[in-house]
Amino acid sequence: MITSLLDTDFYKLKIAYFAWKLHCNINVTFAVQNRTKSIRLAEIIPINALRQELEEIQKLRFTREELAWISDQGFEIEFVNFLANCKLPDFKLEIDEQTSQFILEFNGNWPEVTLWEIYSLSTISELKSAYTGFSLNSILELDMIVNRAFVRLDDKLQILSNIKDLKISDFGTRRRFSFDYQESAIQFARLRLGDKFIGTSNCYFAMKYNLKPIGTTGHELAMVYAALADNDTDLKNSQYEVYKNWSEVNEASIFLPDTFGSTQFLKNAPEYMLDWAGVRVDSKDIYNGRLEIIDWYIKNHRDPRFKNVIFADGLDVNLGINSNGEDIISFNEYNNYLKTPLQNMSFGWGTNLTNGFKGLYNGLFDPISLVCKVKEVNEKAAVKMSDNYQKMYSSDPKELDRYVRVFGIEGMENNQTNV
Amino acid sequence: MITSLLDTDFYKLKIAYFAWKLHCNINVTFAVQNRTKSIRLAEIIPINALRQELEEIQKLRFTREELAWISDQGFEIEFVNFLANCKLPDFKLEIDEQTSQFILEFNGNWPEVTLWEIYSLSTISELKSAYTGFSLNSILELDMIVNRAFVRLDDKLQILSNIKDLKISDFGTRRRFSFDYQESAIQFARLRLGDKFIGTSNCYFAMKYNLKPIGTTGHELAMVYAALADNDTDLKNSQYEVYKNWSEVNEASIFLPDTFGSTQFLKNAPEYMLDWAGVRVDSKDIYNGRLEIIDWYIKNHRDPRFKNVIFADGLDVNLGINSNGEDIISFNEYNNYLKTPLQNMSFGWGTNLTNGFKGLYNGLFDPISLVCKVKEVNEKAAVKMSDNYQKMYSSDPKELDRYVRVFGIEGMENNQTNV
Repeated sequence: MITSLLDTDFYKLKIAYFAWKLHCNINVTFAVQNRTKSIRLAEIIPINALRQELEEIQKLRFTREELAWISDQGFEIEFVNFLANCKLPDFKLEIDEQTSQFILEFNGNWPEVTLWEIYSLSTISELKSAYTGFSLNSILELDMIVNRAFVRLDDKLQILSNIKDLKISDFGTRRRFSFDYQESAIQFARLRLGDKFIGTSNCYFAMKYNLKPIGTTGHELAMVYAALADNDTDLKNSQYEVYKNWSEVNEASIFLPDTFGSTQFLKNAPEYMLDWAGVRVDSKDIYNGRLEIIDWYIKNHRDPRFKNVIFADGLDVNLGINSNGEDIISFNEYNNYLKTPLQNMSFGWGTNLTNGFKGLYNGLFDPISLVCKVKEVNEKAAVKMSDNYQKMYSSDPKELDRYVRVFGIEGMENNQTNV
Repeated sequence: MITSLLDTDFYKLKIAYFAWKLHCNINVTFAVQNRTKSIRLAEIIPINALRQELEEIQKLRFTREELAWISDQGFEIEFVNFLANCKLPDFKLEIDEQTSQFILEFNGNWPEVTLWEIYSLSTISELKSAYTGFSLNSILELDMIVNRAFVRLDDKLQILSNIKDLKISDFGTRRRFSFDYQESAIQFARLRLGDKFIGTSNCYFAMKYNLKPIGTTGHELAMVYAALADNDTDLKNSQYEVYKNWSEVNEASIFLPDTFGSTQFLKNAPEYMLDWAGVRVDSKDIYNGRLEIIDWYIKNHRDPRFKNVIFADGLDVNLGINSNGEDIISFNEYNNYLKTPLQNMSFGWGTNLTNGFKGLYNGLFDPISLVCKVKEVNEKAAVKMSDNYQKMYSSDPKELDRYVRVFGIEGMENNQTNV
């Protein structure tokens, strides 16, 4: 299913670059986790089909054209050489018989293991679509379901096209229905939105369609640094330390404040974070998240209006049925209505762009919330708290307890996880 | 666009058989006519593109497999041999500069010329789709329009699937959006309707999908006989004479009463017409047509309930928007509600099955009412009256006047022509 190593998100290259440059000997374990436990993936996808796909990915190498494109994005040539010779580490793949979920883990050096995230997620997402499709009594049925998804997408895109100054990009590689569907979705988005469609997180499609590759940072940055912290003081500081280092390797563009809770992050953030180009609001309700960011900038005597604030969690356009997430239209109107409208905000549209199948065929194709997270760093359990209790994660409950104690839970929410 | 001579309606083979058997030296001219005059076809379709398609059709021959299928339908072997060697006559193709319509005529012996009808109609219909598609600024736009048409079709099919004892077939070859679209429409109809989808008029798809080929008769039968009548008495009688002869060549299945008006036809019909399997209600409002047929059978002491009455003009399923014709659902409910429900009626679904694009993209793809009719028989003008003033047709106004005088206009209606 994956036929190119460039078929990944741009932020993965940036993280791999960061890790290669500064931390190439850190050992990490990434683990795939299906948050939608009611979908017993191992009963849908044959384990051998998944294994075979993953093995095929290991055989892939970046092509010369792809390496040239990567080089054009400003990465140094030694890193491009590293990618040219890089081999994805082996994986552990088993079935948890109790839950019928896959146990899928990748262990190795950070720069290589980190690349597995998107390949593994999109592979599982596509296999789920394909095997669910095989279960239908006719291939025609699947054709019609896809037709319906496209029409629904087009309805949403036509509504979005009416928003003045919209900036939206594709963030849906990891959750896509299929490679082909994502490609069509990108094409339709360009057709309907023109310049309002500002790019894609997917490097392959960015290259193919001469789009801007959009990539920010990832929670794994703070998670890795935190896991390596020797004591609680270092732990608390690690979330800033990582961005300081990042800005020396990549540019100081968009940071994620929510790895251990946005409220504590912003409250104690060092001055230099205010100079980053902007922030991504990820796991917090977007209305609350917007307010918190604006308040933070204003309290610190910065004008929030021109900061690049990216909203990227579970966004949708509400068509009145099977709505699945925050309505971009309402949020945009709300933003414009207030006295401090964000004038440089943008939206990273994921699942509902590349896998907007929710509710079709009685929900058989409903997307799931699948993630691939750092589980261990140099054999120490990693932790993610986020702004949403539902997304808290650690393989070691004691470590999670410690993080909660260190970072506190101010501003945390209990939101249904939008897929 | 046409790649098989079997890609025609079954009734054309039956008429060719009838003409070959009894009237192989009658010279006829068929002419294509666009009733939707607002669509200036020659400004959409390049004349050379049309000419080339028609020339390609002339090069086609029935394959052995196709001839075997025709033979299996009960035609005698000499007729199959005739078809194997038959070459479609040349055509006259010009543009009427005033109206920007094509002048397209076929002249020759009846058995051969009659075959041109469906090939020419579906070719023009498909060329119109294709060239209208080329006018869009993106091929993606066309993809989405087709997606929308399919979803709309599926919505209609799902509604139809709820009708108990529904019998419906594809009558849409001549008006199809494209060959591929018709094929998909047939496949979806089979998927959603199962045994309720009783067949197709299209021989090619009947063979390919092992469906029953559905064919009745055509107006040209009575039109040819009428044109050959020596005087008014013979003229009036010719409409019955042709069916008497038909029933000696093909079976006495479904007749069309409306060539010169159904009311006069039924009123004066000889006893043997009552023994035909049934009637097709074509140009009359289906509610009135149904009533008239039932009355006729009852007056003549026949039970109409088990007669095979086929409704086939401008049918649709009303989705509340862009409805285009008589709603099958309402009509079916009405029929069941009355004290004499037709229990063996069926529907021939044409344009809205194979070209249900009305209203999409601001109506750019709205289907048109295109026909290919007998214009002359042995150099005498042919006439069609039908039950609808809007469908009256003759190349010679004096002849039309004479027919109106001979047959009268009782029961005629002035209906908008449903495409």
